[in-house]
Amino acid sequence: MSSLRGIQQPELSKKLYKLIKTENHQVSAYETASRESQSVASQLSEWGETQDDAVSDISDKLGVLLAEIAEQEDLFAQHLEDSRGVLKQIRNTESSVQPTRNHKTKIQDEIQKLKYKEPTSTKLVTLEQELVRAEAQSLVAEAQLTNITRQKFKEAYDLHTAAIIERAEKQIMLAQQARRLVNLLDDTPTVPGEERPPFENSEAAREVLNDAEAGLRNYSPSIEPIHSAAGRLGVNAMPGSIEQEAAQPRIMQQAEEIVQSPQQETMGRGGQVMYPTSETSYVAA
Amino acid sequence: MSSLRGIQQPELSKKLYKLIKTENHQVSAYETASRESQSVASQLSEWGETQDDAVSDISDKLGVLLAEIAEQEDLFAQHLEDSRGVLKQIRNTESSVQPTRNHKTKIQDEIQKLKYKEPTSTKLVTLEQELVRAEAQSLVAEAQLTNITRQKFKEAYDLHTAAIIERAEKQIMLAQQARRLVNLLDDTPTVPGEERPPFENSEAAREVLNDAEAGLRNYSPSIEPIHSAAGRLGVNAMPGSIEQEAAQPRIMQQAEEIVQSPQQETMGRGGQVMYPTSETSYVAA
Repeated sequence: MSSLRGIQQPELSKKLYKLIKTENHQVSAYETASRESQSVASQLSEWGETQDDAVSDISDKLGVLLAEIAEQEDLFAQHLEDSRGVLKQIRNTESSVQPTRNHKTKIQDEIQKLKYKEPTSTKLVTLEQELVRAEAQSLVAEAQLTNITRQKFKEAYDLHTAAIIERAEKQIMLAQQARRLVNLLDDTPTVPGEERPPFENSEAAREVLNDAEAGLRNYSPSIEPIHSAAGRLGVNAMPGSIEQEAAQPRIMQQAEEIVQSPQQETMGRGGQVMYPTSETSYVAA
Repeated sequence: MSSLRGIQQPELSKKLYKLIKTENHQVSAYETASRESQSVASQLSEWGETQDDAVSDISDKLGVLLAEIAEQEDLFAQHLEDSRGVLKQIRNTESSVQPTRNHKTKIQDEIQKLKYKEPTSTKLVTLEQELVRAEAQSLVAEAQLTNITRQKFKEAYDLHTAAIIERAEKQIMLAQQARRLVNLLDDTPTVPGEERPPFENSEAAREVLNDAEAGLRNYSPSIEPIHSAAGRLGVNAMPGSIEQEAAQPRIMQQAEEIVQSPQQETMGRGGQVMYPTSETSYVAA
């Protein structure tokens, strides 16, 4: 079923649609990795129960650290999912821009056909007016698309790379504590019948877990910020957080200049189509 | 089929058998995560091809960095597999110790039964001699088991935690470069019809990839070593790298003291069973 839905995607959003779908598999794989790692951690602890005091204590606490490392894997999957959600906003804008492109192309085709068949038809005037509106609509749509694409691209990979760094920094800390723990186990070989000395590192092992907990509690990521100049992007995906009413004439004016059309009536109507309210915004998730 | 094989495992190695099996799923999950992440990286690059110069260049190079991050995920899976291989050596020793335990218990049971049924049977003497041999064998087997368990436990989690740290350190470096790259994309919003200025960060983007490559090339892990005192563990899983012929009498002597049996003939035979050659060693993978 999902492949059928893929086929139904507009041409413009097909590639991103595919990427977002693959990212879903990626997220699932990390969720599975987290789950299996959690199981391994529990099973290590269970195996340790059947061992001598030293191996039992160390493996039980190592299980705790490995479970925490697994937990970070799941958090990573959640953050990837967040990043994926931001890419969907680009894809949705791509999908919503497609009909605008199609509409413009259709009118252009109709005009070409009519000019060949009935060069004197009065319908040509109506079509030319429609084309001006379609071109204005298209200009706005393409501006919205590039604005959303760049802003959301940066936002998505800000989240994605920050997630990689957070998982890595926390897991380094936990793995270092795990190594401290493993070092508390004496592997000096014994001879037959020789009793191992009693395990005296129980306190030290407890201390390792405390340090690991404190490490997680006090964690703060060390990342360079990703800068965005898109802060002024309004709900209409146009520059400026200024009032819509104020912004409209300026954009309209530019659209006018480009399509070189003085028809105020047409532009006015086109303009209304162009400025979606927050309910109908292309950016809505 | 695998669950049947699980049931057939000796009691002693059942828990570790289960853990090693789950680790296989864990390794597979990371291999899948690597593969899916590779696909996401390619698809990002393909999507970028349909975009403007700036987004195209940045997303293509970001794809390269994400592919390298995915590659590290696969390397991590390989290292987990190495650690898993070391745990198998403990499991194999556990499996091989089981018959020795069973044998001793069986003789003890036979002696108890015979003492009750035929307290004067001459067979009791033979059985008592057999028990002495079985106890000697068992003492050696248990010493081998604790020696192998501790040595290989430390080795396995040395590899496991070092793998976590290596993946994390490399991915932090790559993710930081990825953030530098994303920062090269200007997301200042445009108005309809406005052309974006030509992309001027192409050189800087190339520099990011060069730095990332250099970072990987010059990478060396920053881990605290895990110390082992098992270096003197011989192929027979007993202390001392000294010649087997020289070590044998010392261990034999200790075994004698413990089982308090002066039968040299019995011990000699027991001893032969106890000291596997490198071909038959419990430690063989």
